[in-house]
Amino acid sequence: MLTMQDALARLTGYWTAQGCLTVQPMNTEVGAGTLNPATFLRVLGPEPWRVVYVEPSVRPDDSRYGENPNRLQTHTQLQVILKPDPGDPQELYLGSLAALGVDVTAHDVRFVEDNWASPALGAWGLGWEVWLDGLEITQFTYFQQAGGVNLDPVSVEITYGIERIIMALQEKTHFKEIEYGPGVTYGEVFGQSEYEMSRYYLDDADIDTNRRLLELYAAEAQRLIDDGLPVPAHTYVLKCSHTFNVLDARGAVSTAERAAEFARMRRLAGDVAKLWVARRDELGHPLGVTPPPGPRVIAPVAVLDPEPHPVVVEIGTEEMPPAEARSALAQVERLLTERLAATRLAHGGIRVYATPRRLIAVVADVAAREPDTTRTVRGPRVAVAYARDGSPTPALLGFARKMHVDPGDVHDDGTQVYAEVFQAGAGALDVLGEVLAQVVTGLRSARNMRWSDPELAFTRPIRWLVALWGPHVVPAFASALPAGRRTRLLRTAADPVVPVASAETFMETVALGGVVADAADRRELIVTGAQDLVYGVGRVDVTGEAELIDQITYLVEQPVPLLGTFGEDYLVLPDVVLTTVMRKHQRYLPVRDETGALLPLFVAVANGPVSVDRVRAGNEAVLRARFEDAAFFYRADRRTPIAAMRDRLARLTFTDKLGSMADRAARIAALAAAIAPAGVDRVVLERAGELVKFDLGSQLVTEMTSLAGIMARDYAEHAGEPTAVAQAVHETELPRHAGDDLPASLPGAVLSLADRLDLVAGLAATVGLPTGSSDPFAVRRAVLGLIAVHREHPTLAAISLREALAEAARRQPVEVPAEVLDAVGAFLAARLEQVLVEEGQPVDWVRAVLPHADRPSVADRLLYELSTLVGDETFEAVAAAIQRARRIVPEGTPAAYDPAALTEPAEIALHEAVGTVPSPDGSLTRYTRDAAVVVGPIARFFDEVFVMADDPAVRAARLGLLATVRDLGAGLIDWAQLRR
Amino acid sequence: MLTMQDALARLTGYWTAQGCLTVQPMNTEVGAGTLNPATFLRVLGPEPWRVVYVEPSVRPDDSRYGENPNRLQTHTQLQVILKPDPGDPQELYLGSLAALGVDVTAHDVRFVEDNWASPALGAWGLGWEVWLDGLEITQFTYFQQAGGVNLDPVSVEITYGIERIIMALQEKTHFKEIEYGPGVTYGEVFGQSEYEMSRYYLDDADIDTNRRLLELYAAEAQRLIDDGLPVPAHTYVLKCSHTFNVLDARGAVSTAERAAEFARMRRLAGDVAKLWVARRDELGHPLGVTPPPGPRVIAPVAVLDPEPHPVVVEIGTEEMPPAEARSALAQVERLLTERLAATRLAHGGIRVYATPRRLIAVVADVAAREPDTTRTVRGPRVAVAYARDGSPTPALLGFARKMHVDPGDVHDDGTQVYAEVFQAGAGALDVLGEVLAQVVTGLRSARNMRWSDPELAFTRPIRWLVALWGPHVVPAFASALPAGRRTRLLRTAADPVVPVASAETFMETVALGGVVADAADRRELIVTGAQDLVYGVGRVDVTGEAELIDQITYLVEQPVPLLGTFGEDYLVLPDVVLTTVMRKHQRYLPVRDETGALLPLFVAVANGPVSVDRVRAGNEAVLRARFEDAAFFYRADRRTPIAAMRDRLARLTFTDKLGSMADRAARIAALAAAIAPAGVDRVVLERAGELVKFDLGSQLVTEMTSLAGIMARDYAEHAGEPTAVAQAVHETELPRHAGDDLPASLPGAVLSLADRLDLVAGLAATVGLPTGSSDPFAVRRAVLGLIAVHREHPTLAAISLREALAEAARRQPVEVPAEVLDAVGAFLAARLEQVLVEEGQPVDWVRAVLPHADRPSVADRLLYELSTLVGDETFEAVAAAIQRARRIVPEGTPAAYDPAALTEPAEIALHEAVGTVPSPDGSLTRYTRDAAVVVGPIARFFDEVFVMADDPAVRAARLGLLATVRDLGAGLIDWAQLRR
Repeated sequence: MLTMQDALARLTGYWTAQGCLTVQPMNTEVGAGTLNPATFLRVLGPEPWRVVYVEPSVRPDDSRYGENPNRLQTHTQLQVILKPDPGDPQELYLGSLAALGVDVTAHDVRFVEDNWASPALGAWGLGWEVWLDGLEITQFTYFQQAGGVNLDPVSVEITYGIERIIMALQEKTHFKEIEYGPGVTYGEVFGQSEYEMSRYYLDDADIDTNRRLLELYAAEAQRLIDDGLPVPAHTYVLKCSHTFNVLDARGAVSTAERAAEFARMRRLAGDVAKLWVARRDELGHPLGVTPPPGPRVIAPVAVLDPEPHPVVVEIGTEEMPPAEARSALAQVERLLTERLAATRLAHGGIRVYATPRRLIAVVADVAAREPDTTRTVRGPRVAVAYARDGSPTPALLGFARKMHVDPGDVHDDGTQVYAEVFQAGAGALDVLGEVLAQVVTGLRSARNMRWSDPELAFTRPIRWLVALWGPHVVPAFASALPAGRRTRLLRTAADPVVPVASAETFMETVALGGVVADAADRRELIVTGAQDLVYGVGRVDVTGEAELIDQITYLVEQPVPLLGTFGEDYLVLPDVVLTTVMRKHQRYLPVRDETGALLPLFVAVANGPVSVDRVRAGNEAVLRARFEDAAFFYRADRRTPIAAMRDRLARLTFTDKLGSMADRAARIAALAAAIAPAGVDRVVLERAGELVKFDLGSQLVTEMTSLAGIMARDYAEHAGEPTAVAQAVHETELPRHAGDDLPASLPGAVLSLADRLDLVAGLAATVGLPTGSSDPFAVRRAVLGLIAVHREHPTLAAISLREALAEAARRQPVEVPAEVLDAVGAFLAARLEQVLVEEGQPVDWVRAVLPHADRPSVADRLLYELSTLVGDETFEAVAAAIQRARRIVPEGTPAAYDPAALTEPAEIALHEAVGTVPSPDGSLTRYTRDAAVVVGPIARFFDEVFVMADDPAVRAARLGLLATVRDLGAGLIDWAQLRR
Repeated sequence: MLTMQDALARLTGYWTAQGCLTVQPMNTEVGAGTLNPATFLRVLGPEPWRVVYVEPSVRPDDSRYGENPNRLQTHTQLQVILKPDPGDPQELYLGSLAALGVDVTAHDVRFVEDNWASPALGAWGLGWEVWLDGLEITQFTYFQQAGGVNLDPVSVEITYGIERIIMALQEKTHFKEIEYGPGVTYGEVFGQSEYEMSRYYLDDADIDTNRRLLELYAAEAQRLIDDGLPVPAHTYVLKCSHTFNVLDARGAVSTAERAAEFARMRRLAGDVAKLWVARRDELGHPLGVTPPPGPRVIAPVAVLDPEPHPVVVEIGTEEMPPAEARSALAQVERLLTERLAATRLAHGGIRVYATPRRLIAVVADVAAREPDTTRTVRGPRVAVAYARDGSPTPALLGFARKMHVDPGDVHDDGTQVYAEVFQAGAGALDVLGEVLAQVVTGLRSARNMRWSDPELAFTRPIRWLVALWGPHVVPAFASALPAGRRTRLLRTAADPVVPVASAETFMETVALGGVVADAADRRELIVTGAQDLVYGVGRVDVTGEAELIDQITYLVEQPVPLLGTFGEDYLVLPDVVLTTVMRKHQRYLPVRDETGALLPLFVAVANGPVSVDRVRAGNEAVLRARFEDAAFFYRADRRTPIAAMRDRLARLTFTDKLGSMADRAARIAALAAAIAPAGVDRVVLERAGELVKFDLGSQLVTEMTSLAGIMARDYAEHAGEPTAVAQAVHETELPRHAGDDLPASLPGAVLSLADRLDLVAGLAATVGLPTGSSDPFAVRRAVLGLIAVHREHPTLAAISLREALAEAARRQPVEVPAEVLDAVGAFLAARLEQVLVEEGQPVDWVRAVLPHADRPSVADRLLYELSTLVGDETFEAVAAAIQRARRIVPEGTPAAYDPAALTEPAEIALHEAVGTVPSPDGSLTRYTRDAAVVVGPIARFFDEVFVMADDPAVRAARLGLLATVRDLGAGLIDWAQLRR
């Protein structure tokens, strides 16, 4: 059996053979290998650096006394840095797995999007977690920034989680059972330390002592920065970081402290980074400087092939995130269409495909050349072009020479000379080369990264280009990357890199190599494969899981669904816990019986031909561990009093300025009490308010935040809370996204509103409202939630969201200015308008009810009334009367008049009719009926009365009368918006 | 080339293959691998443990900004723990060198005594430094105690100094040039860190911050001990230790602080150790318990060989320290003689030999059996033995049965019955087996250690026993170690373990195997070999280097002298620096020309057949590095002002209670001024007093303490001090040992006395006077120094050491009680007596002059006078007269009388003669002449006068007169001691 110590030695040996230096772990406590100066400092600056080292990584917060099978206060990382990016780091990485004895052709090894950022270090990178049969074994990152400094060159950072890998390889279910050395288990060697250090971090560390240590460390770090010594300064930054983590694990860090400490560490780390860069410059870069890429040479090609050919362009990448692959597909289609259109090259239809690792564009029937053409080029003015004697001046001669025409072929239009210049059509290869470069360099993603290429920036590195026009390679470079005819198949293929004969055979070549290029085909393989696997046993909810299936479609190039099982025992866990783990963490499709109940089965989708049995076993083990983890947390949570969980909210920051989650929960409860109208069960509301968000303090929700609310209901019921209370606490979190369930109970609905009002008020004042796609705190979603909940509960129509928002604003720890509340009101109205229009309501109706945007359920009712009234003669007449009055009466005219000034019978009749119309009671239908009395009199009024009488008093009275008509039904709807 | 990282990997791999676990370095700063819990905690208790790990070891005090070629603030240790001792750890270790590619048969690998102790950790062990061609590359220790806890089983601790080994293997002269990885030097990788961390430790570490950290760490350690958590507590003890080292490197630790911190750390470490042991007990020893040794089975042997044979006993050990080997030789001789004498086995002469690895005893002509014999055994009384009828009683019958005799063979002597019992002589093998076990288990050394044997304790492990009587193995065990016929030759022999045919061939077998058993033969090989090597070039001072040669004789089993050279440049260093390095550090013999001037040559003595060229090259490189180091320090010291060096004395502790070296130096200067008699140059004395011991603050003396005083003279002269001052400062340190040079100048002599008086007064009061062999502070040597210096300078006769000691006592920071001063006086007298007797002076003379023990030079002069006077008639008569008077006069009789009571002429004549004798002026010769006048009268007095007259008044006067005679010359010598 490969022991853990052997594994460390093999990996170290493997990377050493790849040119890595071996160094030692940091001799002060660090949370990750990244913090070791061999990474944090060495990734800075231009010096090349390759290193491998082991790093026992201390995470006080992960202390579990050694009881949790997968969680340790100190776990073992093996860290590799490759600087600069060697161009094939994934392949090198797969080699390291082989060195561990992992048959990567039999297992399902996958690169699944996972980016990394350490705000406290001003560091981030993009990359993946690497999955081995579903188990996350490695973090693989292109390091982009450290200490706030942009990294150039970029480093590849590979971090192996050794305990996890070994547990998988040794098939152990608890880290203590790992065979660390021959005949000696991990638990035997490190068990006592794991327990005692957990005791220290969770229970026994003296808070005051650690606080004082933190201050001393920070001061020493600053002093050393001032002294210009980045190396010892960095050591003290690490000591700060660890000590902060200790305090945090002891629950001793307040919201304000956390923000301040992060800011301080970020500042210190940034200073250290800058100082290091400066020092290395001064030292003249002892390890040398990374050389720039070699020159790009495009050999001229002479292809005399007059026939049109299809063109294939393949942009080969490392695994793109699914959303980025889809976006890139659209971009390629657009860019290629546009760029080709800008040439004169004739071509047929364009088809584009995307997989995680490639973007393929196929263009039919691309001509061999652009047609020749001429163009008119204008030259000097006639007066300048010819001398007085009509002879050509040097200006004209120069123009002719420049245009390569005979001076005699220069004509004039009386004002200016011109020449018809011949333009030879360019060959397809030349044209396509330029188009290709433009397409590739034009690709962008939501978050772009750099790698070893000097100019390219994209979601993940672009590693190869195929570009063929028929059998001919299109000679081109995209930045430093040359196009060619060699494509890459699945990494596990016997021959992973193969030449493609021609554009015509390209799709066949990749298809034969196992790559299913078309997403629709892959989706079909997944869906039918999954259904076949569960046929007769259960079913996969293809519709319900559509989003997940779409994602999986872009996670594999050759879907290989396989059926796995798990222990029936786990079915006692809440359904949502199981499905969350399956879907979110593992991308497994749940399997249900005909009643919809979960079966102890799942469908995983591997990539390419694997050993199904091994991959199944691996995935089953991963799921078991995940479920075991969840079960562990679930049981622990159920043993924990609700009050204890709620107490932990004080340790969770909401935002720097808006306090802790405990603060927020208290605000929500108070606000709910304040805004709840009569009819809401006050007892339930009050108790539910006390419990709001308590499950954020549970272990399970800490692990799986998407279960917030759901677990609250479970734990509350388990603790003996009334069902209505548990329900309301759960419903506070609803809706979590568009289309989600809405609170069914009134207390739940009120709390849900209060939750969102608190969030919107606070964030609008501190962060601002969402703009464009930037909405880090999901304020837009909260506003949509307000609308949805309000609409769902007409009983709550009395609640004005605008007024409730003002209530929420008063409870914020920051001032919320009036103009912010106005802006939120406008934002709310705009969202409501958008929602209603998208639901298919006529825009004019929507606009007519928008004055009720702060009571969306009122708007809803009015819309419904409109739908029944529109076309009704009376309603149309009333509306027409009101609109007609509005058109005549100048703006600002008050709806008041002296009835004594009215003399005409028609106007007196109108006056009398208007007087009988009651104020609207909210119902448009009723009001229409009530207002019907004015329809006849107003028609008569317009027929018989000249409003603009000479006598000003008469005129004023008549206008006042009309203004009164104009204001009929005011506040009910905006009559002016109704389309005529 | 083997890079440093390869070396670490190879060693780790090698030890892993030997069953060691691989663990990681400690993630807090430690000064040595020993501090890692994988050593410090794991060596405690009964659990077996084998481990290998790398430990970057931080020694703030060794910071040199990366400038010194051999000294780093962080050097790399590779640490191995083997628990229990596997029985062959040296052989395993040699295997590790082979794994590094070191051909141990070509190189000279040696185990040179070097013990280890860490008072701050309550830890110690015995063992060696391992030399590779003279270079110390490894510390090899049998760990005996940690945290004050005795270790059972004992662990073997092997600590490689990686940078040193690699520098040797790569033939580099500066650590920065080490090839760390392929194409990358150590300096390129770690140079900046080495510089910056040196800056931190030497210049920039904030003292107040580190002081506060130390307090916080210590408090946290204590708190965790109280909480029963040894693992985190240990971490904080390590943080204490490192922080203390930082403060120390910054020069911020006072004497009082150092003592207090050491005591605190020792206490904390002890508590941690005890707690760990208790916890492991509670946990039931997760790694199991070391099994006890198997049973000892001695198969019965039946040898029917009637001839006498020689006996050979070989006790095979790991390398004994030279002094211990010599002591063991004597012990074996004594024990064997005694034990054999206690048997009836006839045997011839006994010869014993010793080498570093074996003790051999050869006994000639050992008989095959003890002779048979009979002995008389007494039984019951007759009254009990026989019934009234004379028949034997059951008592008699029982006696006869017990004695295996027929009741008829029981006789009686009238009172008691007896039997003549036959005693068969035991066979030689049985007798020898018992003798052998007694000899081996009876061996002891000055400092005994334990290893894997359950009962044996000796200076180093005993690993094999050969015991042969002629061709027969003596079947025996010494504790768990069986005797056999397999001896071990040099470890590098082709066949290092060989069977021996018989006792007769034993010496031949080991001799053929290359072992020179007889020390005299080895010494001869060294001396003649060395002289041959330098013949015609220079000479080795065989007499002057006798002590070193004796030592080398016991460092090798087969001396192979070789001649090495060093750069002539180094000859500019003071002679003593060079020879100290050669002799003390390297055991090389210096080579001089006919004028006595050093030549750039040395003779090293390798052990056994090596590749002379390689070993020479290695030794030359080591010497070069040592000289380079010394030259570095020497140059640096010469650049340092004397005052700056002297300032550093405040940082050096003399003893906890007696203050710093600065305190001591000040006391010496003041005392010298106080005791200096007229005639001593006061100007020189005062300036020299200001400088006393300043060179203890120099780098060179810090490295080579034996150069104290010598360097003071050099540096003082270099700094422009007058020669007389420089000389006196130097002479303060003289004599350093018996037979050493004595101060030539008076100021030097006075300072030397003051130095020793201060030491003796302070230590006698705080530590006590030496007892037996225990004299840690060399008080005995200091007293001998006082005697020697005083004797050397009769000019200083006026100084009473007794009074000067009282002066010194008054200056101590502690009270020195009168009885302590008395004890010192008695100690001084006893030493003087011993010295003088050993010089061959007659004991009676010596005792006669001992009243002057506080002025040894006076005693000397009197002894000289005695030697001229003894045999002189007058002197003998005077002495006889005085002694005769003493014998007659009762003790306590005052030397006073009423002359009027004298009546007899003889007594009146004596009275008159006595009255003419002047008081002694110090000269015995003169006094003899002066006192001659009493010789006649006293003879006459005894002839004529009856002392014990009846008249009490007369009797009193006569006794008073005789008492006056008795007291003649009192205070000059103790006449009573002179032999008649």
